[in-house]
Amino acid sequence: MSAIRHALSTTREDDFAQWYQEVISEAEMAEESGVRGCMVIRPWGFGIWERIQRLMDDRIKAAGVENCYFPLFIPLEYFAREAEHVEGFAKEMAVVTHHRLIADGKGGLIPDPEAKLEEPLVVRPTSETVIGSAMARWVQSWRDLPLLTNQWANVVRWEMRTRMFLRTSEFLWQEGHTAHADREGAMEETLRALEMYREFAEGPLAMPVIAGEKPENERFPGAVATYSIEAMMQDGKALQAGTTHYLGTGFAKAAGIQYQDKDGAQQLCHTTSWGVSTRLIGGVIMTHGDDDGLRVPPQIAPHQIVILPMLRDNDEDEALLAYCEEIRRGLCSQSALGEPVRVLLDKRPGKATQKRWGWVKKGVPLILEIGGRDAAGGQVSVLRRDKLWNEKAKANFQAKSKDEFVAQASEEIEEIQRSLFEEARAKRDANVVRRIDSMEALKEHFGEDKRYPGWVELGWSRATGAELEDVIKQLKALKLTFRNTPADAEPASGTCIFTGKPAVETIYVARAY
Amino acid sequence: MSAIRHALSTTREDDFAQWYQEVISEAEMAEESGVRGCMVIRPWGFGIWERIQRLMDDRIKAAGVENCYFPLFIPLEYFAREAEHVEGFAKEMAVVTHHRLIADGKGGLIPDPEAKLEEPLVVRPTSETVIGSAMARWVQSWRDLPLLTNQWANVVRWEMRTRMFLRTSEFLWQEGHTAHADREGAMEETLRALEMYREFAEGPLAMPVIAGEKPENERFPGAVATYSIEAMMQDGKALQAGTTHYLGTGFAKAAGIQYQDKDGAQQLCHTTSWGVSTRLIGGVIMTHGDDDGLRVPPQIAPHQIVILPMLRDNDEDEALLAYCEEIRRGLCSQSALGEPVRVLLDKRPGKATQKRWGWVKKGVPLILEIGGRDAAGGQVSVLRRDKLWNEKAKANFQAKSKDEFVAQASEEIEEIQRSLFEEARAKRDANVVRRIDSMEALKEHFGEDKRYPGWVELGWSRATGAELEDVIKQLKALKLTFRNTPADAEPASGTCIFTGKPAVETIYVARAY
Repeated sequence: MSAIRHALSTTREDDFAQWYQEVISEAEMAEESGVRGCMVIRPWGFGIWERIQRLMDDRIKAAGVENCYFPLFIPLEYFAREAEHVEGFAKEMAVVTHHRLIADGKGGLIPDPEAKLEEPLVVRPTSETVIGSAMARWVQSWRDLPLLTNQWANVVRWEMRTRMFLRTSEFLWQEGHTAHADREGAMEETLRALEMYREFAEGPLAMPVIAGEKPENERFPGAVATYSIEAMMQDGKALQAGTTHYLGTGFAKAAGIQYQDKDGAQQLCHTTSWGVSTRLIGGVIMTHGDDDGLRVPPQIAPHQIVILPMLRDNDEDEALLAYCEEIRRGLCSQSALGEPVRVLLDKRPGKATQKRWGWVKKGVPLILEIGGRDAAGGQVSVLRRDKLWNEKAKANFQAKSKDEFVAQASEEIEEIQRSLFEEARAKRDANVVRRIDSMEALKEHFGEDKRYPGWVELGWSRATGAELEDVIKQLKALKLTFRNTPADAEPASGTCIFTGKPAVETIYVARAY
Repeated sequence: MSAIRHALSTTREDDFAQWYQEVISEAEMAEESGVRGCMVIRPWGFGIWERIQRLMDDRIKAAGVENCYFPLFIPLEYFAREAEHVEGFAKEMAVVTHHRLIADGKGGLIPDPEAKLEEPLVVRPTSETVIGSAMARWVQSWRDLPLLTNQWANVVRWEMRTRMFLRTSEFLWQEGHTAHADREGAMEETLRALEMYREFAEGPLAMPVIAGEKPENERFPGAVATYSIEAMMQDGKALQAGTTHYLGTGFAKAAGIQYQDKDGAQQLCHTTSWGVSTRLIGGVIMTHGDDDGLRVPPQIAPHQIVILPMLRDNDEDEALLAYCEEIRRGLCSQSALGEPVRVLLDKRPGKATQKRWGWVKKGVPLILEIGGRDAAGGQVSVLRRDKLWNEKAKANFQAKSKDEFVAQASEEIEEIQRSLFEEARAKRDANVVRRIDSMEALKEHFGEDKRYPGWVELGWSRATGAELEDVIKQLKALKLTFRNTPADAEPASGTCIFTGKPAVETIYVARAY
C-alpha cells in the first residue's frame, strides 16, 4: 500500500488542519478573498451549497414554512431590547456608521464626516430581533398561528480566528423563525426542525449525527432550550452542524409578539429559531474526504458522473465525442436518489489523465474515461471515487459494457451514497468510548499523546448554575466541551463523574470545532 | 361598468403611485421594515422572486456560466483603484467602521472605540472590483478564457428616496461577471446576456421590452458600452429592467486580469457585467396590475391555481375536501409552460368569499370555488384573474365539468400567459409616438396636462461629449431621459430634433423610474 501516490501532498494522519485547507484549495471549493475573514466560494464549493440549499428548501417548504427576506441591517435599539441576546452577540458585530465616502485629497477615500448615521446599523449576526418586530405586526389573533417563516441569507459575526467554511466572518445560512400559541406548539416545531436536520445530515450529506439537547451553558443567547446535531470529524473532534432553539416568550416579550386567544385575552407567543449554514460543507469535507481530496456524497454532488473523452486531436475525435454524448444522454434519462442523474461531459482541452485527477480531488462519485478502443468495443472504463486504488496501487478502473453501466448507474450511485454513510458511521462508532468512570480516566483518555481521542459518552447529573460552571471549568482545562444529550438515549444509570451525583441522562464529551 | 366595486381603494387612474403601494400592501408582497430604505419581502413577494431566480438561473447555467459567492464587504482600496467607477458609486455606500459594540453605560449600545477598523469596509454596491481581484488570480492563460461567473446576492446603495422593489437601499439581484480574450468575445457575451434578459422579460414575465444600447451619459460607471431592456409601465413611464455592460479593458487593468496568449505575450482581458434585480417585481406589478390588485403571469406565479373549498363546518366538509383533493391531484399531474402545474388547496379557516378576494389581490391566475353542489354535480366554478368581471359587474365565475377543466387547465394557463403579454404589448405600442419632429412638438407632447404621455421614438444624431450634455440639459428641463437605441430598429432617416444634424439611429425618450 505504501506505493500509492496520493493526490494531495498532506495526509490526514500528518496534519489534519493542513490537509483540510489543501482539500479546499485543490478541489477549488473556496479561497481567501483578501477581505478579512471572508471567503470566495468557487463554483465547485458553491455548486455543493446550491445542492444543499435546494434539498433543504424542499424539506422546509414541505413543512409548511414560507420563505421571506428581511433587512441586512438592524438598528442598534433592536439589540438593546433583548439584553440576554445582546450579551451573546455584542462582541462580534460589524457596525455601519456612515453612508457615503469622499476623496481624502490624497488619492484615497474616507467615510464622509457629513454622512454619519444618527443611529449606527448592525450587519445582522442573526435575525431574531428584526423578524420578531415583523412578527409583532403580522400576528394579531390565534388564527394567525403558527406563523412559520424562513430566510436564506448572509450573516456576519466578526471572528478573530477564521477557518474556511467552519468559521468565517460572513457566512451563508438559512434561519427558520416561528411563532406559536403555546409552549407545546413551539417545542414540537423545535424538535421537528431538529429531526429535519438529523435526516438531512444522515440522508443527503451521508453524515451520521447525534441529535439532542445542549447543556445550559451552550444555549443560544436568550434561548430556553437549544438542540443540536453533532457530527464526528475524522480527527475525532465534534462539529456542531445545526441547531434549533425553543426561545420561550422572551423574544416575543421584547418584540411585542402577542395574539388574542379564543377567549379574547392577549397572550405572548412562544417562538423558535433554527439554522444550518455553509459550515455543513466543512462537515462534509472532514467526514468524507480522504488523502486524495474530497469525496462528495452523490446526493449533493453538482455532477454525479463526469465523462472524460480521451481526445487526440485527430479524425477519430468526432466519433469518440458522439459515443460519449450517447452515454451522457443515456445516463441523464436515468433517475437516482429521486432525481435525474447529473452528468458532465468534460470537453475542455487538456489530457484526460490530468483532468481525471482534478475530478478525483473534487470528489466526483464516478469518473468515466473513454478512449477510441472503448468506443469501438462498446465499453466504458469506470472509476469509483470511494474505491480509488486497486491492489497494485493504481487507479482502480473497471471495464464494463456501456449498456450494462448505463443500466446500473442509478443503483451504483445509490450504493455509493449508502456506502459513504456506512463508512462514516463505522468510523464514528469505533471512536465513541463508554467505559470512562472517573475524572482521572477522562484525563488519561484525552492525554496529549492520543491523536484521535473521539468522543466519550458519560452519565450526567444535569448540573445547572454554579455547579455546572464548575464542571465546565474542569472540562475546559482538558480542552473539552459538552456536545449534547442524545434524544434517543437509553435511561442513564450510575454516577456522574463530575458531580458524584446519580446520572439522570447521557451526554457526549469531546474536543470540538 | 361603473357598478364594479374594485378590490382596491385607489385606481391607477386616480393616483398611480398610491395604487402601486396599495397593490404591494394588499397583495402582501412587501412592507417597510423599520430600517431606513430596507424592505421586508413577504412570502407572496418572495415566492415570485424565487420563481424569477429559478427560471433565470436555469438560463444562466445553460449559457455555461457558473455561480460563485464573493464577500459582502469590499476594502476601500479596491474602489480607489478604479477612479471612474468610484466616481459613480462613491456617493451612496454603507461603510463599516467598527467590529464590536459595547454598553454606553446608559442602557444602550455604541460602537466600541477600541474596535475601530484600520481600513473601513464598504458594503458592496456591486462586485466588479472584488470579483476582478479574484479573476486576476484565476486567469493565467488563454486556456482559462472565457471565465464566466455569476452571483446571486444582496447589494446596498444608499438611497435618499426609496420606493419598494423599484429603489431600495438593500436589494437582491444576480450579477454576471465574465472575462474574455478580446473585444469580440466580450461583446458577444454582453449581447447574449441582453438577449437572455429580453427573452426572460417577454417570456416568464410577459413584459414587453425594448432591448438596446444606452447613450453615453447613461453608461455604468467605467463601462465602454451599456445596454438595457426598457419596459413601459401603465402610467407611460419607462422602467430600466436589466442592464448589460461591456467594460473594455479598464477594470482588467485596475485589477490585473491578464492572460498569456498563444504566442506567449501578456494581454489584458476584456470584461463584462450584467444584472437584474428585485426591481423586476416592480415592473411586473406596474405592467400587469389592475384596479383589483396584482395579476401574476402564470410562469412566475408561486401558485397558478388556488382551490377554495366552501367549508360549512358540518358533516359534508369531509366529502367536499376529498373532492377538492382529487381535483388538486389531477391538476398537479398536468404540465404547463414546461413545468408541473402549481396548485394550492387553501384549507385555512375563513369564508371562501373573503379568501377569494385575498387571492384576487395577490393575482393568482385561476381561482376555483367549490361548494357541495359542485362536488355533487362533478362541477367546478372557475374565475380567471385576467377576466375578473362579467357584464353585470359581478365576479365572472364559469361553471365547468371537473374533468373538462382539469384536461384543459394547461392550455388555459398558457393562454393566460400569452394574453397578459399581448395586452401589455398592445398598451405599450399604443403609447409610442413617432411623429414628433421638433423640440416644440416634444414639449407640447409632454405638457403638464397629459397624464400618460408614453414614449417618443426619435431620430438621433448620436451626439457625444459637450453636445450630448447640452441635449441632456434640454431633456432634463422636460423631466425626460433617453432610454435606449433599439438593437433591431430600421435605419434612421431625417433630422435629429436636438442637434439639427442628420439622424443616424433611433432612440426612445421618456419619463422614467
